[in-house]
Amino acid sequence: MRKRLSVEDYTAGILAGDRIMLSQAITVTESRLPADKELAAAILKETLPHSGNAFRIGITGVPGVGKSTFIESFGTYLTSLGKRVAVLAVDPSSQKSRGSILGDKTRMERLSHNPLAYIRPSATGLFLGGIARSTREIMLLCEAAGHDIILIETVGVGQSETLVKGITDFFLLLMLAGAGDELQGIKKGIMEMADAIAINKADGDNAQAAALAVSAYQNALHLFPKADSGFPTEVLTCSALQENGMEAIWKLIREFEKTTRANGFFDQNRQNQNLNWMHDLIRQSLENQFFSDAAVKTKLTSLEEAVRDGRELPDSAAEDLLRTFRNVKS
Amino acid sequence: MRKRLSVEDYTAGILAGDRIMLSQAITVTESRLPADKELAAAILKETLPHSGNAFRIGITGVPGVGKSTFIESFGTYLTSLGKRVAVLAVDPSSQKSRGSILGDKTRMERLSHNPLAYIRPSATGLFLGGIARSTREIMLLCEAAGHDIILIETVGVGQSETLVKGITDFFLLLMLAGAGDELQGIKKGIMEMADAIAINKADGDNAQAAALAVSAYQNALHLFPKADSGFPTEVLTCSALQENGMEAIWKLIREFEKTTRANGFFDQNRQNQNLNWMHDLIRQSLENQFFSDAAVKTKLTSLEEAVRDGRELPDSAAEDLLRTFRNVKS
Repeated sequence: MRKRLSVEDYTAGILAGDRIMLSQAITVTESRLPADKELAAAILKETLPHSGNAFRIGITGVPGVGKSTFIESFGTYLTSLGKRVAVLAVDPSSQKSRGSILGDKTRMERLSHNPLAYIRPSATGLFLGGIARSTREIMLLCEAAGHDIILIETVGVGQSETLVKGITDFFLLLMLAGAGDELQGIKKGIMEMADAIAINKADGDNAQAAALAVSAYQNALHLFPKADSGFPTEVLTCSALQENGMEAIWKLIREFEKTTRANGFFDQNRQNQNLNWMHDLIRQSLENQFFSDAAVKTKLTSLEEAVRDGRELPDSAAEDLLRTFRNVKS
Repeated sequence: MRKRLSVEDYTAGILAGDRIMLSQAITVTESRLPADKELAAAILKETLPHSGNAFRIGITGVPGVGKSTFIESFGTYLTSLGKRVAVLAVDPSSQKSRGSILGDKTRMERLSHNPLAYIRPSATGLFLGGIARSTREIMLLCEAAGHDIILIETVGVGQSETLVKGITDFFLLLMLAGAGDELQGIKKGIMEMADAIAINKADGDNAQAAALAVSAYQNALHLFPKADSGFPTEVLTCSALQENGMEAIWKLIREFEKTTRANGFFDQNRQNQNLNWMHDLIRQSLENQFFSDAAVKTKLTSLEEAVRDGRELPDSAAEDLLRTFRNVKS
């Protein structure tokens, strides 16, 4: 059992930008021990007034698109501007492997040795909601520790994107050029979530195909509804490997921030994110209590089957379960 | 106070295809009186084994796209094939006007006099969730009354589309050709929900622009992720006014049904819809109980403000409210 420090020690360490203290506080945040939960809540409460000042960027794309190389390249570029960068990951698949997309540090070797960058492998062994929750808290701690930019990597397959979209200011989708490759594995809805699309691996023989992909996507997006941000979804190319395009992407992101701060979307979006987060937590908690109730559990499987097959109305099954739950409670 | 009949009378009338009995049963379903709720639940239970055989089509598009004319034209075409058609509407805006997009029967005059068609104006005075709930129940009653095709009209502005998508087999988006018009008022995400897009008003001077819009959208959609249905999103033209294109749309829908029945999506989707409906009802009920709790209400406004402004963590505000709720309950 690791020794825990006091709330004051952790807070002072984080605010001083001490990476070891930050890492230890994150470990406390990810812990499921009740004492740790209380400690984590107290640390978060103390550091909260010092968070919120970073720009938060979600980065997604299917496996093979080059996310790690991109983050290495983009993160290195940002540090070259003097920015302090924190890299986090939401990776529900790591539950299975007990590994992590960022655990393989060799893929971001340069960035991991950069004093301006902080890389935190994703939490493992948590359900998706738990990962998202801890990621949000880790983000706030990293902000309190003085990081200017938070990069959150996700795996491009669905639900985790919605969660990351819900805690970031800007959502970047990485894609590849070439026949059919653009679509490979990307779920419906994710493209419409993106604030910008970067066609990666725009180098060598692939450069021309990437340029063609850019104009094809620009034309296509032109036909789709405008973003709520008021900032049109841009498409550009980059080569993470050759470190090309990083400046253009950063310029675009700064323009996005400028536009959305001016039109009020930036603040509105963060406020809505905070409120939605609270409501999601309440909903989760109410549902957890309901579905973990012993009497509900006893009935649930057979009722779900009947509803699925159309033998029972969803309405009466819901009524039945809710009555069961309330009788037990009262 | 209108006299109510027995469950048996309503059920027998509905199964015999008696339109007056169907209308009266729908009125009971829409009622908020506790006695009516019980009666409605019993009618639904009795008729449930006879529902589920219709093909359910959601139709959306912004005001001015010609939805009512389209439904008049498409519905008339379907009845010419001997199909029995029921037309419903989900229109949250009707709450304000106390009117209904379908209440204006003159806009569907021909269809409303067609013995094979049944048009039900949308319920008024209900919150969106309530409208959706009663629409789903009305749909089941119409199916039990022998209708082959259910058309559900919605207004193209957001949440109601998600609800209608969740109770239909096929989702048709109506759009207009011409500079910028395609996008006017359509919310992000709705295009990706569509199983097909029909460019309406493809007549006269507009025919060429409509044809161009078709190829533009076909190219654009080609770049987007494939639908879960396994059926590619098609784009076609129609003129509801001149009754052109109805046959092509119906042919497409039949192909969609054939494909999705063969690949298992049709059944899987309906089963998921049933289950999701049950879970949504449970979630709604749990949340209603929570947010209507007097102690929760007292704290809610100030906590929401603090969370919105970032002064309070969503996590601790949620905890606070949940504790308040549980203390009152226990």
